Amino acid sequence: MRDLAGDLRHLSINTATLRKQLALPAIVEACVARGIGAICPWRDQVHAAGLAAVAKQVKAAGLAVSGYCRGGFFPAADAAGLRAALEDNRKAVDEAKALDAACLVLVVGSLPGALAGKPTSKDIGLARTQVLDSIAATLEYAKGVGMPLAVEPLHPMQAAERASINTLEHALDICDALDPGRTGALGVAPDVYHCWWDPKLESQIARAGQKRLLAYHVCDWLVPTRDLLNDRGMMGDGIVELRKIRAWVEAAGYTGAIEVEIFSDHWWARPADEVLDTCIARYQTVV
Amino acid sequence: MRDLAGDLRHLSINTATLRKQLALPAIVEACVARGIGAICPWRDQVHAAGLAAVAKQVKAAGLAVSGYCRGGFFPAADAAGLRAALEDNRKAVDEAKALDAACLVLVVGSLPGALAGKPTSKDIGLARTQVLDSIAATLEYAKGVGMPLAVEPLHPMQAAERASINTLEHALDICDALDPGRTGALGVAPDVYHCWWDPKLESQIARAGQKRLLAYHVCDWLVPTRDLLNDRGMMGDGIVELRKIRAWVEAAGYTGAIEVEIFSDHWWARPADEVLDTCIARYQTVV
Repeated sequence: MRDLAGDLRHLSINTATLRKQLALPAIVEACVARGIGAICPWRDQVHAAGLAAVAKQVKAAGLAVSGYCRGGFFPAADAAGLRAALEDNRKAVDEAKALDAACLVLVVGSLPGALAGKPTSKDIGLARTQVLDSIAATLEYAKGVGMPLAVEPLHPMQAAERASINTLEHALDICDALDPGRTGALGVAPDVYHCWWDPKLESQIARAGQKRLLAYHVCDWLVPTRDLLNDRGMMGDGIVELRKIRAWVEAAGYTGAIEVEIFSDHWWARPADEVLDTCIARYQTVV
Repeated sequence: MRDLAGDLRHLSINTATLRKQLALPAIVEACVARGIGAICPWRDQVHAAGLAAVAKQVKAAGLAVSGYCRGGFFPAADAAGLRAALEDNRKAVDEAKALDAACLVLVVGSLPGALAGKPTSKDIGLARTQVLDSIAATLEYAKGVGMPLAVEPLHPMQAAERASINTLEHALDICDALDPGRTGALGVAPDVYHCWWDPKLESQIARAGQKRLLAYHVCDWLVPTRDLLNDRGMMGDGIVELRKIRAWVEAAGYTGAIEVEIFSDHWWARPADEVLDTCIARYQTVV
């Protein structure tokens, strides 16, 4: 396993972690000031700051972009909606390329309308068919641009609203179907928060291998967890076996960034400096 | 598929659904008065009313007992804890037999201490090993008594506190390991609340078949779901494809009860008559 205690070049901060405290340019500055090696920015944060300006700032700072969050949300109630989602994903691919991101992370979507609390369909099988077809279409475009797509399985408790792909196995089945040659154009972004419980996690990480492991996200699962969305824990504060899982990921050949992504009402209420310093301390000691 | 609109003999009420409104004898009376065919009582409710009295009341009423909730919670921090859990499960087997229950439902447990908010271990792999060994030991005893054991996979969001078996596939792997002859002594209790999201649900129900399908639980998954434990929906109020899943279950050979189990702060606050009448109406129209 890599030694993370020394420097921070393999550490990436997913910028959602600080979205309530700072605008993206200030997050970049704070990361650079600490010697953090990478960020994974969100689209809305990039749009607010301006794509060209962010790309310029990140490049000048020598910061890597471990991923771009996020494409996906493919299923729709009608053909126009499906087309609009594909068009938006092509834009996301282009933005990821402008940022020189390592991959575009896909949160694939699920029941149309569910994210707004008004699902217009209960047919998750249909959503999964739309997801498969839409990843295929987006992959064609992304290969032309040279931007790898990373499918992120979300926790099953988010299966109705956010992602109908909820296990690493399912995500890898899709990769095998659409990229049987394991070209590196399509892979997965396992996040311990979403996958820690899975009895097949170790075997599926091994199955993914270096070619399919395009990102690795960490935080922690709190006991008890009080909210289905915004109660992620800081690494070390929950029950995820972070070292064990990272050992599996690195044994499979992964050499990329360790990305900290914490959606948490608790941490969003703390000063940005405290959050970043805590991320660093935990990264060096418990990840 | 069976026609549920006519009578209620295949309907079972899991008595947790009314635990805040009525004691068990009154739940039994209310079910019998409506022609409901079965109940699935909880141990604490049975203990409060007295095992012998409940057994007598249920038998006199001609009510079936579709299952007994619940055995399990096997993992422990030390050998004494493991032994105590096994002893308690033998008692649960005996109680289930006294009630002439169709099966003892197992919620297998997970990280020791987690249910009380103080996990003493993060090793879910160890918990799973303890679960496998403990089911094996309990199965030996239960076979002697003639009481089938039904493993209930719980939703992955309850993987730390309540059950380290979170998919039907995992539960069936354990059944195959411990009961390769498919004798009927060990099976599964799929609950749509816990399993609806699983892309392998249809295939694993078929794999289970009549010999392993010992129960079938229904409620609904609300969008949004606001609590990880007590926000289950009434059938028809959420996004679970109830008819589709029941078709899979019955195609696999299941002929047992359809058990309604709703943990819900909303429904616990409603009058018992309203809850039961709504369960019946939804059972007849959307299940």
